[in-house]
Amino acid sequence: MIFDLREEGSSGRLGAMDTLTAVLTRMLDGRLAEVRRDVREHLAKEAEHGAFDTTRLGVTEHREHVARQLRALAETKQPGLGFPTEYGGGGDIGAAVVSFEMLGFGDLSLMVKSGVQWGLFGGAVHLLGTRRHHERYLPDIVSGSLLGCFAMTEVGHGSDVQGLRTTATYDPDTAEFVVHSPDVLAHKTYIGNAARDGRLAVVFAQLVTEGKSHGVHALLVPIRNERGEVLPGITVEDNGPKAGLNGVDNGRLAFDHVRVPRTALLNRYGDVSEDGTYSSPIESDGKRFFTMLGTLVRGRISIAGSAGSATKRALTIAVRYAERRRQFEGPDGDEVVILDYLSHQRRLLPALATTYALHFAQEDLVAKLGELQGGGEAAGADDRGQRELESLAAGLKAVATWHATNTIQAAREACGGAGYMAENVLPSLKADTDVFTTFEGDNTVLLQLVAKGLLTNYKDQFEDLSPLATARFVAEQFVGAVMERTAARKVVERLVDASPTREDDGAVFDRAWQCKLFADREQHVLEGVARRLRAASRDNAFEVFNSAHDHVLRAARVHIERVVLDSFVAAVARCDDERARELLDKVCDLYVLSMIEADRAWFLEHGRLTSPRAKAVIAGVNRLCRELRPHARTLVDAFAIPESLVRVPMLDWT
Amino acid sequence: MIFDLREEGSSGRLGAMDTLTAVLTRMLDGRLAEVRRDVREHLAKEAEHGAFDTTRLGVTEHREHVARQLRALAETKQPGLGFPTEYGGGGDIGAAVVSFEMLGFGDLSLMVKSGVQWGLFGGAVHLLGTRRHHERYLPDIVSGSLLGCFAMTEVGHGSDVQGLRTTATYDPDTAEFVVHSPDVLAHKTYIGNAARDGRLAVVFAQLVTEGKSHGVHALLVPIRNERGEVLPGITVEDNGPKAGLNGVDNGRLAFDHVRVPRTALLNRYGDVSEDGTYSSPIESDGKRFFTMLGTLVRGRISIAGSAGSATKRALTIAVRYAERRRQFEGPDGDEVVILDYLSHQRRLLPALATTYALHFAQEDLVAKLGELQGGGEAAGADDRGQRELESLAAGLKAVATWHATNTIQAAREACGGAGYMAENVLPSLKADTDVFTTFEGDNTVLLQLVAKGLLTNYKDQFEDLSPLATARFVAEQFVGAVMERTAARKVVERLVDASPTREDDGAVFDRAWQCKLFADREQHVLEGVARRLRAASRDNAFEVFNSAHDHVLRAARVHIERVVLDSFVAAVARCDDERARELLDKVCDLYVLSMIEADRAWFLEHGRLTSPRAKAVIAGVNRLCRELRPHARTLVDAFAIPESLVRVPMLDWT
Repeated sequence: MIFDLREEGSSGRLGAMDTLTAVLTRMLDGRLAEVRRDVREHLAKEAEHGAFDTTRLGVTEHREHVARQLRALAETKQPGLGFPTEYGGGGDIGAAVVSFEMLGFGDLSLMVKSGVQWGLFGGAVHLLGTRRHHERYLPDIVSGSLLGCFAMTEVGHGSDVQGLRTTATYDPDTAEFVVHSPDVLAHKTYIGNAARDGRLAVVFAQLVTEGKSHGVHALLVPIRNERGEVLPGITVEDNGPKAGLNGVDNGRLAFDHVRVPRTALLNRYGDVSEDGTYSSPIESDGKRFFTMLGTLVRGRISIAGSAGSATKRALTIAVRYAERRRQFEGPDGDEVVILDYLSHQRRLLPALATTYALHFAQEDLVAKLGELQGGGEAAGADDRGQRELESLAAGLKAVATWHATNTIQAAREACGGAGYMAENVLPSLKADTDVFTTFEGDNTVLLQLVAKGLLTNYKDQFEDLSPLATARFVAEQFVGAVMERTAARKVVERLVDASPTREDDGAVFDRAWQCKLFADREQHVLEGVARRLRAASRDNAFEVFNSAHDHVLRAARVHIERVVLDSFVAAVARCDDERARELLDKVCDLYVLSMIEADRAWFLEHGRLTSPRAKAVIAGVNRLCRELRPHARTLVDAFAIPESLVRVPMLDWT
Repeated sequence: MIFDLREEGSSGRLGAMDTLTAVLTRMLDGRLAEVRRDVREHLAKEAEHGAFDTTRLGVTEHREHVARQLRALAETKQPGLGFPTEYGGGGDIGAAVVSFEMLGFGDLSLMVKSGVQWGLFGGAVHLLGTRRHHERYLPDIVSGSLLGCFAMTEVGHGSDVQGLRTTATYDPDTAEFVVHSPDVLAHKTYIGNAARDGRLAVVFAQLVTEGKSHGVHALLVPIRNERGEVLPGITVEDNGPKAGLNGVDNGRLAFDHVRVPRTALLNRYGDVSEDGTYSSPIESDGKRFFTMLGTLVRGRISIAGSAGSATKRALTIAVRYAERRRQFEGPDGDEVVILDYLSHQRRLLPALATTYALHFAQEDLVAKLGELQGGGEAAGADDRGQRELESLAAGLKAVATWHATNTIQAAREACGGAGYMAENVLPSLKADTDVFTTFEGDNTVLLQLVAKGLLTNYKDQFEDLSPLATARFVAEQFVGAVMERTAARKVVERLVDASPTREDDGAVFDRAWQCKLFADREQHVLEGVARRLRAASRDNAFEVFNSAHDHVLRAARVHIERVVLDSFVAAVARCDDERARELLDKVCDLYVLSMIEADRAWFLEHGRLTSPRAKAVIAGVNRLCRELRPHARTLVDAFAIPESLVRVPMLDWT
């Protein structure tokens, strides 16, 4: 066994599967425990050879290093998990997402580079292409012998991808598309695999045929030959050093009237016949484009998952350090272990509870993805389930990546000067995950998308992120807060229905009270936003929307917090080990109460909490920190991160 | 003129001094405008030669680069500003601190390395040494021909420096001290200038003579010869790559029975005669040590200042980007400038207002430092003014560095993917300043120190940071909240006294109401903490203190927020330009209201705000964001950061 689940100091004679830690690990690993185990073993093996010790590498060496690791990964079955079995894949999209998530325990450059290769690039060929593309490319993509790019973002358009300005104009004389960047703002940028390794790019461009534009489509454009030389008409510029993720070769791509055959168009949702006639199963340009984007939702889900993994690694390191590091004499004459200070517990333990909460919500999201896109087929554009999935993916991505940024920062600070040293890993975790809040959709824009879905009851084509379009659309709709009927929601509803209303201060620990509070807040905030937006006319829609902007984002946030709580409650309910369930129950309490504490101004303002009850919430957080402190190590060990990835030098010398 | 204060697009015919921007700059630059101008010109000149383009340098090259820049800086008069005139200095400690602050506009590695050399190392020789040390070393320290270290932190003790374990044992037979590291936990670590450039170290060690320990003292220990070779008995280990500040050569130092002459002791506060007799003007070991530390308070003040400079640079870049970057179509058909979105204004403008507030508070703090330590002499250990200064320095350092971390993060996110590219500077600002929250005193520990001062009315030797000692001490004291009588406080009191109490919702914009609210909160929180701590007995003091830990830290925070508001109010009052005063008045409103908004739960819980008033505060923040949006550029331009340090590539291609 390459990694060891036993707690330090345990006798080693207990079967690992008997410990509380192991029970929790089983609980966390869930349905796809086997995939998780495979990736852990791969990472542990690589780590033994020092594969993740990148702190002394320059940008060039780091890229080479990660390219090598990508090849090593290509030899496992992980990369193929999400692809159809006939092309060497595993046909299980959930497994693919979980395997990306687990890569988040290692060097995040490898996670992102493999996400570019097999998630974005391979995923686009798979989901936007048709049999001719699959047959020709998927085997080489899966095996890693053909590396590629996902060229969507442009200098001038990141969030607003509908406004992309690269063009692909059909020339019926030669049956070719001419791919062109009209100016600098249309250059593709931040494109992974572009600066060094990519040979083929999925390029998103405005498709023009017979003098008419049909909106954004994706085409396959070769950018380098087999010797790695950049092809004529293509200009590649290196994005250079970044805050982190320097093992990924991001670059700019510009196209100067580059010709590709008609069949280069990934034509699942729109096609051009030889004579230039455009056809598509979806009439509206916008709806078609957002349907295409919707099939790629797994990217955001993977980012949310790997943000969670990085957060778990940071917390594991910080908790271990806080259990060893002592500072200032205590009442017994010994120096006090810093995790015994309430202020230190408050830095780490609520964040740990939230990490558990997000883990279970992510599990439910992946399950939902599996149900809808199980074998790789995407749902139709009108499918409400698909749009709810996209909304949830967007919301969890935003919440999970902000949580990662905040928690890794807190973990760094909790380790003082030692936490600033590269050898102790926290610096790279911080720098690498920092971009997660703005890539694969800027978090603020994503929350807007969540709010839009709630406000319009998922009535429109969904991915359109424009505030103006949202504002106008909302102004015209009958809106209302309708809770979706997830499995988790049903568990919660049964729980709430079965519980009498409590009025004493102990109620803050009552799960039914907590659940009602979250659901009620969601409904109230959403109705408030709806009321404000309905006051808008077509003319002042933007103004009205903009002045309610913070309110709109808040609606999305409280919705996601409620969804996360539902998932956590359902997870606790299905735990069949009594000790584990008791512990998770407390962790769930800490999640809820720390969320209420952070937002208690709202609850007070809206008469949902009295002053004494609000103070009871604060006291409850303190009490839970104290009670969970002895279990902190168990809770992080249950993440079962390979030992070589968390045993940093500072744990040896304190 | 090397840098240009005029706004982009201004005619160039207006004299720079007539613009609102220039008036604000004059206001911000204050008493030491000349020092600020000198440093700006030095940085601008260096930047023209590409001196701050370090993004492609490895650790080794970056260190060489910064060492070169340190030499260039040594040729200006800045390094000497805080040293006595007879050794080539300027004799003005305030000017020295401001010059460090201004270095924060450039490469922060240079700021930190020069802070190590001239602030910590030189400052210790100056303030803890006597004439014999001054004559022998200060001229070479000032000129930069002798580089040195400030060797305080050990592997085992960072915050609790009273517990340092390096020993300096006097040997009367040879009239030498034997400096020794008993084990790994006693090794000095994170010591700037240790890994590469330092030749002499100020080493903090437990002084032992005649078999008795007298607490921590500082000695001069040579660590390298003139050829840069490490001396016998000294072991140097490189701390290796760090999250940031890689231009500074931090390292570990271990001492194996290293002998230095008796006169190596920096003997201002304690001395050993040839026969080994110990003498000191201060009887208590603890009080003596904290008096020594107190003289070095300028280090924290400089960090607070340069954190402010880095924050200003990040905001300047982010505001300029937000004024150019457009995304999503607006109602007039054009794409909307992102600073026009309320959510974007909320990310940047309250942070900008707080940056102004902290600037004026920093100015007052530097003035106070100048009054107390003007020519370099430190106040006596019993001087209450000195202890108030240390408290304020600790508190502002904590608040300013957390503000920097949060604001630079927000600025990075506000620039999306572009903000993640090293060439756009935000990544290095983030990585370099990250350690500010934990070095020169961990922020949490510093807030504890502030609280202790307030709770004990500055009665004890002040720097003792131990929670247990604090708890016991507080439990024995009569405590109470007494507001200090600063110049700013007097301005505020006159203002409050002259204003009738308002009860309408417009009151949220009433300065007197705001000031009363802050002062009242401070008093209430402090009294609450005092009540909880007085309940402690000697035996349970730690337990009681620890369970009130968050309350204690909160008392410190709200105190500092009130002090900062006082400074801002006084600054607005002394502004003699009407347009500037009107603008600053609004900025001050935004500072206050965004602080109240963030803490409105407390105000609601304690009956200080009604629900409608709390909602008026939120609406007030939104209104101020809208009203200040057209002035955002003016407000950042007024920081007058040399153009070459803020004109990053992304500002050209959007």
